[in-house]
Amino acid sequence: MSLARSVLKGDRLALARRLSEVEKNTPAGHAALNELFPHTGKAHLIGVTGAPGTGKSSLVNQLALHYRRPPQGEPRRVAVVAVDPSSPFTGGAVLGDRIRMRELAGDKDVFIRSMASRGSLGGLAQATAGVVAAYDAAGYDVIIIETVGAGQSEVDIARLAHTTLVVEAPGLGDDIQAIKAGILEIADILVVNKADRPGVENTERALKNMLALAHPTQKVFQHHGQRMTAEPENKDEAEVPMWIPPIQRTVAPDGEGLPELITHIAAHYAYLQTSGDLTRRERARLANELDVHLRERLVADFHEGLSPGAYEDALDQIVARSLSPTEAVAQLLKK
Amino acid sequence: MSLARSVLKGDRLALARRLSEVEKNTPAGHAALNELFPHTGKAHLIGVTGAPGTGKSSLVNQLALHYRRPPQGEPRRVAVVAVDPSSPFTGGAVLGDRIRMRELAGDKDVFIRSMASRGSLGGLAQATAGVVAAYDAAGYDVIIIETVGAGQSEVDIARLAHTTLVVEAPGLGDDIQAIKAGILEIADILVVNKADRPGVENTERALKNMLALAHPTQKVFQHHGQRMTAEPENKDEAEVPMWIPPIQRTVAPDGEGLPELITHIAAHYAYLQTSGDLTRRERARLANELDVHLRERLVADFHEGLSPGAYEDALDQIVARSLSPTEAVAQLLKK
Repeated sequence: MSLARSVLKGDRLALARRLSEVEKNTPAGHAALNELFPHTGKAHLIGVTGAPGTGKSSLVNQLALHYRRPPQGEPRRVAVVAVDPSSPFTGGAVLGDRIRMRELAGDKDVFIRSMASRGSLGGLAQATAGVVAAYDAAGYDVIIIETVGAGQSEVDIARLAHTTLVVEAPGLGDDIQAIKAGILEIADILVVNKADRPGVENTERALKNMLALAHPTQKVFQHHGQRMTAEPENKDEAEVPMWIPPIQRTVAPDGEGLPELITHIAAHYAYLQTSGDLTRRERARLANELDVHLRERLVADFHEGLSPGAYEDALDQIVARSLSPTEAVAQLLKK
Repeated sequence: MSLARSVLKGDRLALARRLSEVEKNTPAGHAALNELFPHTGKAHLIGVTGAPGTGKSSLVNQLALHYRRPPQGEPRRVAVVAVDPSSPFTGGAVLGDRIRMRELAGDKDVFIRSMASRGSLGGLAQATAGVVAAYDAAGYDVIIIETVGAGQSEVDIARLAHTTLVVEAPGLGDDIQAIKAGILEIADILVVNKADRPGVENTERALKNMLALAHPTQKVFQHHGQRMTAEPENKDEAEVPMWIPPIQRTVAPDGEGLPELITHIAAHYAYLQTSGDLTRRERARLANELDVHLRERLVADFHEGLSPGAYEDALDQIVARSLSPTEAVAQLLKK
């Protein structure tokens, strides 16, 4: 039996091995993904992002635990990929796997893996997409994509998710407004974690004000860069109310607010299905994956076709300022 | 006289117009950059990065003011590009230009511009590189590239700089360790801003400990991903001491620590020159620019060569899970 088939059968060791290949972007990794890909498309992909210091890891930990004992319905199989784009050069798993595993260890239906970037965001997003696809094929119901930081990398990772949670916490400094302005546009659910800290009312009020600004008449809202108006294309959709991101307080280590948060996540997934938005997000998500692969392949093929030294020659001329980068590209393409 | 020539002559309005073209990635912007490029390579490029809440904008403001009245030597002409990757979908200038301009307004030798990402990090890094090149050609001595956030985007922006300042501040939360681990590797100078706040000793001690771990014998150090050992290739370099990132406390609004910071920056630039590292960083920086342009051009050419509908057909098959993204790429390349 091939490793990919073992993954489909739920073999954790086979999954871990395949994930290593996927992360390293090896031919075996590509082959496994091709074999696994037809079996994807079933999981609910949840992105969790926010600034450092908001307690995301602890929240994700609790989310996983609560999916194993949900407020209603069956326990779900949960896989987590924790992406750390702030650690670009080190490689390997750097987040607190072991800390988390103490609570979740022994549960065969929870799988957690951390990834650090290896210097290229494109590479990281691609590797993360591969890990998510492998989880999906392996039958995990809920896949959580966690990212550290507050920049473009979060947005790129959020593009991989169906439902994006943006985590805030009281008292995180003065340019928090600047973050929210951008991050509100990717948030489906806002979490005020560390809600037992002083200043929680201020944080919540600030978020409410920003939401009110973003949804002035509750008739127009944006998400994932797509502007939706109150006049949808067909009548079915007109009956679906707009999604306004709810704000949920949590105290992650105590599990406070977690059952409510899980209910919000389920409500958002139901909304995505009834509104037809799930189909649109899936298509955008897969188009993004296609583009990343396409770009990588085009660049690799191009370098393969160049005569030896041509690239370094062009670079020499740029360094000498006798050729601009765009002129150098034109010259290289002629060859 | 062409606009590009006016930029070279120091015309601020011409510069502002060209920067708009460069940001929008228009043919006029490309043409201007090609004309300006031979005149670049003179400025000292300084990156300023760090987590939200560290007071970077205020620090950059003060840096600009102090370069206008340096502790020693002549006043320098300063240009700032403040990049906000956390605001991906809004476009335009979002950072506190007006706040800053109140203090620096009227000084013809200071130029400040803010940029928000337009959904693509590659695009943002490319546009920022273009803005930096235009500043350089326009004769600014010191160019400061400021970024908000704490992720991969910072690293990509830091690749544009010769000297990278990483800004920390006391009391910024519990996963600050995770940030530092990655960010130390890009730091040439560490700034503890808001040094009048409680906890400044802890922050400084934590940084010192991490530096000690990173430079155990002071014989090996890393920067920009390059590992340098105590045995350099030639004897000249052997006489240059290794650069260990200094830690400087600042209280930006008061200008406290700013003269010392400017001295550290000058020392780092001198180090880059004597060690030969400036040449290496310039080459890496320009190679990165070349790669970004190359990638963009290859993708554009590819799409132009496709038959209408071929891309959407491939995407349909991916959505239907009858083709994996890599298989789709192979299929598209055959056409």
